[in-house]
Amino acid sequence: MTLDYDIIVIGGGHAGCEAASAAARLGSRTLLLTMDMAKLAAMSCNPAVGGVAKGQIVREIDALGGQMGRITDLTTIQFRMLNRSKGAAMWSPRAQCDKTRFSEEWRRTLENTWNLYIWQDAATELLFAPAPETNAAPSDNLPDETTTSFNSAPGTISSAAESDADSDPTLRNAPSAAGKLAIRGVRTRMGVEFSCRKVILTSGTFLGGVMHCGASHAEGGRAGDAASHGITESLRAIGFETGRMKTGTPARLDARTIDFEILEPQYGDENPAKFSFSPETQPVKEQLPCFLVYTSKEVHDILRTGFDRSPLFNGTICGIGPRYCPSIEDKLRTFADKDQHQLFLEPEGSSTNEYYLNGFSSSLPWEVQWKALHKIRGFEDLHIFRPGYAIEYDYFPPTQLHHSLETKLVSGLYFAGQVNGTTGYEEAAAQGLIAGINAHRAMKGESPVVLKRDEAYIGVLIDDLVTKGVDEPYRMFTSRAEYRILLRQDNADIRLTPLGYKIGLISQKQYDHFTQKNTFVESLISFAREQSVKAAEINDYLKSVNSEPLSQGRKLYDILMRNNVTFDSLQNTLPKLRKFIAANEITPEAIEEAEIQIKYKGYIEREKFIAEKLRRLENIRIPENFDFHSMQALTIEARQKLSRIRPETIGQASRIPGVSPADVNVLLVKFGR
Amino acid sequence: MTLDYDIIVIGGGHAGCEAASAAARLGSRTLLLTMDMAKLAAMSCNPAVGGVAKGQIVREIDALGGQMGRITDLTTIQFRMLNRSKGAAMWSPRAQCDKTRFSEEWRRTLENTWNLYIWQDAATELLFAPAPETNAAPSDNLPDETTTSFNSAPGTISSAAESDADSDPTLRNAPSAAGKLAIRGVRTRMGVEFSCRKVILTSGTFLGGVMHCGASHAEGGRAGDAASHGITESLRAIGFETGRMKTGTPARLDARTIDFEILEPQYGDENPAKFSFSPETQPVKEQLPCFLVYTSKEVHDILRTGFDRSPLFNGTICGIGPRYCPSIEDKLRTFADKDQHQLFLEPEGSSTNEYYLNGFSSSLPWEVQWKALHKIRGFEDLHIFRPGYAIEYDYFPPTQLHHSLETKLVSGLYFAGQVNGTTGYEEAAAQGLIAGINAHRAMKGESPVVLKRDEAYIGVLIDDLVTKGVDEPYRMFTSRAEYRILLRQDNADIRLTPLGYKIGLISQKQYDHFTQKNTFVESLISFAREQSVKAAEINDYLKSVNSEPLSQGRKLYDILMRNNVTFDSLQNTLPKLRKFIAANEITPEAIEEAEIQIKYKGYIEREKFIAEKLRRLENIRIPENFDFHSMQALTIEARQKLSRIRPETIGQASRIPGVSPADVNVLLVKFGR
Repeated sequence: MTLDYDIIVIGGGHAGCEAASAAARLGSRTLLLTMDMAKLAAMSCNPAVGGVAKGQIVREIDALGGQMGRITDLTTIQFRMLNRSKGAAMWSPRAQCDKTRFSEEWRRTLENTWNLYIWQDAATELLFAPAPETNAAPSDNLPDETTTSFNSAPGTISSAAESDADSDPTLRNAPSAAGKLAIRGVRTRMGVEFSCRKVILTSGTFLGGVMHCGASHAEGGRAGDAASHGITESLRAIGFETGRMKTGTPARLDARTIDFEILEPQYGDENPAKFSFSPETQPVKEQLPCFLVYTSKEVHDILRTGFDRSPLFNGTICGIGPRYCPSIEDKLRTFADKDQHQLFLEPEGSSTNEYYLNGFSSSLPWEVQWKALHKIRGFEDLHIFRPGYAIEYDYFPPTQLHHSLETKLVSGLYFAGQVNGTTGYEEAAAQGLIAGINAHRAMKGESPVVLKRDEAYIGVLIDDLVTKGVDEPYRMFTSRAEYRILLRQDNADIRLTPLGYKIGLISQKQYDHFTQKNTFVESLISFAREQSVKAAEINDYLKSVNSEPLSQGRKLYDILMRNNVTFDSLQNTLPKLRKFIAANEITPEAIEEAEIQIKYKGYIEREKFIAEKLRRLENIRIPENFDFHSMQALTIEARQKLSRIRPETIGQASRIPGVSPADVNVLLVKFGR
Repeated sequence: MTLDYDIIVIGGGHAGCEAASAAARLGSRTLLLTMDMAKLAAMSCNPAVGGVAKGQIVREIDALGGQMGRITDLTTIQFRMLNRSKGAAMWSPRAQCDKTRFSEEWRRTLENTWNLYIWQDAATELLFAPAPETNAAPSDNLPDETTTSFNSAPGTISSAAESDADSDPTLRNAPSAAGKLAIRGVRTRMGVEFSCRKVILTSGTFLGGVMHCGASHAEGGRAGDAASHGITESLRAIGFETGRMKTGTPARLDARTIDFEILEPQYGDENPAKFSFSPETQPVKEQLPCFLVYTSKEVHDILRTGFDRSPLFNGTICGIGPRYCPSIEDKLRTFADKDQHQLFLEPEGSSTNEYYLNGFSSSLPWEVQWKALHKIRGFEDLHIFRPGYAIEYDYFPPTQLHHSLETKLVSGLYFAGQVNGTTGYEEAAAQGLIAGINAHRAMKGESPVVLKRDEAYIGVLIDDLVTKGVDEPYRMFTSRAEYRILLRQDNADIRLTPLGYKIGLISQKQYDHFTQKNTFVESLISFAREQSVKAAEINDYLKSVNSEPLSQGRKLYDILMRNNVTFDSLQNTLPKLRKFIAANEITPEAIEEAEIQIKYKGYIEREKFIAEKLRRLENIRIPENFDFHSMQALTIEARQKLSRIRPETIGQASRIPGVSPADVNVLLVKFGR
């Protein structure tokens, strides 16, 4: 006997939960297969959502109709808008969450999603069938029958964008479905067989997971949880390339043994915002502080005594770790001359004593971690709940995927999350959402949703994965996006909610809320364009904000483009503005959005110009023996990678993993003129 | 480097949590080693606490200063006093709990217990040292050096009771500590080494755990959790005898797919009581119903189609299962002529759709379970979260233990819970509490707490385990107790709270509350003894409760001994009683207690007489070829065991596992006169 579903999602982490929720809500009969119903969307590492670039992704997930933003809002214990002192493109929302409640809210959400069924067991085998003839793919999408290598980048950014032949810019032609094989089901550890049309694999760090702590290592997918076996093997058997990656997590600390009195607290925002665009969630009411702590030379000296037993340094760990979430031992090596690193102490919830020590990820022997921790000021009497550890796991180089996240090799099989070589809850959730949407759309014979690089960080993320591949755990940064002034956290709804509505993930009520906000924004901008302001009525105000007085009347719009001038402060000076806002009941979020659109108009145009230039100049040659190390404006990573790969053209350089669009701009300035 | 603690508790289940809590609160620096901090005191099987005999144990745990009663009260979603229509000896409190919140409350409790430290990792090795000379045990407590068998029962009930040489009846002489070896520490999977003086092993079903579902089997300690290895091996290496046991759990159901409309609800009590004697908890406010469902001939026919693939029936499972929690397939075999079995559908919490199907435990192939379930009325559209399964695990025959729960072989090593061959959260918690108390007392050189069989079900439980051993998972029943009219749920505090206070687990505040209640009870009983009632003033009342009218005045006490006569109803008839109760502010619980003490005085005396007779007649012979099957008054189990073992005397019969004290009474009636 087999049980039949349209779509089976393997794994109940951040990718799997979004995938299952989306597929089911769109109308596919969906099964979520998870090893442990008590740990849906578990925060295996730090108890936080968002941050620079990641916060933008969460806003995009929400704008498209995903759940992460809403559930974060429901379980937030601290909220901060990072980079508020910088330009609006850099504003990045970040929330500390109650880890247990986050998982509970996800469980409640999924348990009550119609069309969605949960089954607790471990998937151990994928079942394949010959792909139906009607679904046959053109041969150029297929690998040579005798090779299993998919490492070469199948395209560049621009070719991906230019291949768009659909009239709707976001709904591309379905990549002609895979090849020789189609997915037909899943078998579990307890012997249950499920049949289905689509499978979304989101098994995170669990496939072949091995945890390391000094010389000790043990199988496991996460502290306390078993590893999973069988899936990698069944994929390798049909030609999938696999690799090993590594990530790590720091020690968890017992608050009762920390001297908080002498630590520096870091509070949440006074007027906290939130993630979801929906009016159904509210900003956090009661916030908990985080705390700053610091390593010292003494701490570093102790840590170094363990380097010879570090599985990272002595060859035990083969997987490649996340450059941007380095272990404390990596930091000590990379920044050998630094005598202090800042760490963040983050509460894991409002009713637990467990704290997460952000920045102290380690796989050094536990006693080295223990001794070093006890030398940190405030940690003299520290008890830990467990030491940090590193974990190695199987991943599948994502160049084996279409932009839809369907695998090229097996029709109906999608990969999302950490199995694609990414790191981070947000990156995983974004992929899960897109895979869930596209698996459902493929069920219905509809073209996949592929977001462009100028539409969403999610578009950048997936395009990077499938065109460039990864050679270390991929984390999103604003520097990965060429169009980062377009991809702001504030306008994610404008960019994506119409699409979410069109495909069916955004409700009518939510969409009405969105269009109302948009109407407010547009009417306020029109008002500013039309309204003239006399020098006499505004110069006192301009002086008060250190802005040049007017010599003659100007449009309100032009005044708003100046630094320090805001709608909020102008309302007191210009009664007609105040009256307009009041009469039209324009909301604070609409006012903020209008202001950002006005202020950043110039930047946006300049960014578009650079992007255009990037395309035209793609074939500019780089001198053969050029010394990249001499270019201080490049990131250290880019200098290393460019020196190793030695690209012949800027076009080639742009496709090297670790060379960011910002680095490409640096090269353009050098060679393009 | 090693970290040092006084006491290390291995395992965070019901036994481990009570053990760690007690040891730490008594003053020992205690480490609780658990594989998963998110699953402390997890309800791995049904989401309920208490029931017949088990409810009495929980009241005893509470009276002694344990936590189970309090945490049950905090997380109750339905409360029923079972057997209220029977005599007070049979009243048994039972609560449905919110499974997730139960675990969360335990975590909160343990995280905030001073002296208690939690460490998340798996223990894989016990570390031993030669026992110190000062602690050397008399050789008669030790096994022969060349044998590893400890199966012979080391004593009988009466010899255990008679060996009490201490003036305090509950604080016995420490059994001279073990022998050649003493515990010195624990090593974990991640390579951490802890040193300590005492270890309490409470690893439940995790040691060598294997789960079975039809022909499929997989290593695991519980659905979703890994098994644990190493501990059994390190104990076997030094001479411990081990065995395999088996238990099972039913499928978990998705409430959204059940037609509750046509099911028969079972509501909680209208005026629910609670478990804890402490005034700090309150009876449950909002209750959820359970539901009754029934199997049918059709369901049974489907189940039988899987019998050839049942790991229970085809020899795959070697471990012995719990007779009193039989799988549905066991029930079909044992009661082959029954066409219907009643099942209970129990909610797993107030915010989940997960339901537990009590009575349908199974390790039949999942598709057989699935098909059979769908034939149950109300389950036509059923989705399940997972099928039932059986689990086999290592246990240690408990005859290897002293009454203190310290092992005879290793000084300072205690066993508690399912590793001793018991089943049930309550049985586990009780052992954990006693082991925690005694490990702490041994730290301080104090004699262990050993409860007598007439003091507590906990005394019966431990005496049964260490003197009789087990040959199947041991569950508590009222029939296991000779003195069950003494061991009531209502008087657990009178029996045990003075001891709990004396050893330091009951706070002064709680003790004051207890003594106040006791004073109320005694003053009310005195009042009843002294107070005469005239026929004229009470005969109308007596007639109204169908009781014989008085021909002359009687003491109030004598009238209260009658059926149907209660303090509550008498208050309306006797103003002096009403005034006395009001003037002295006597609480309802004290009134209930006084009434039970008055009503059951006769039974208690008769029970003591039988108990005395049991001792005197212990050597009465049983005819060699007696046909036990002819004695219908014996339980089926006793008839089977007596026929197999064929004891020569009633004394011998009384020590056979599965022959209960009630069975012994039946034999006494037959042969003792």
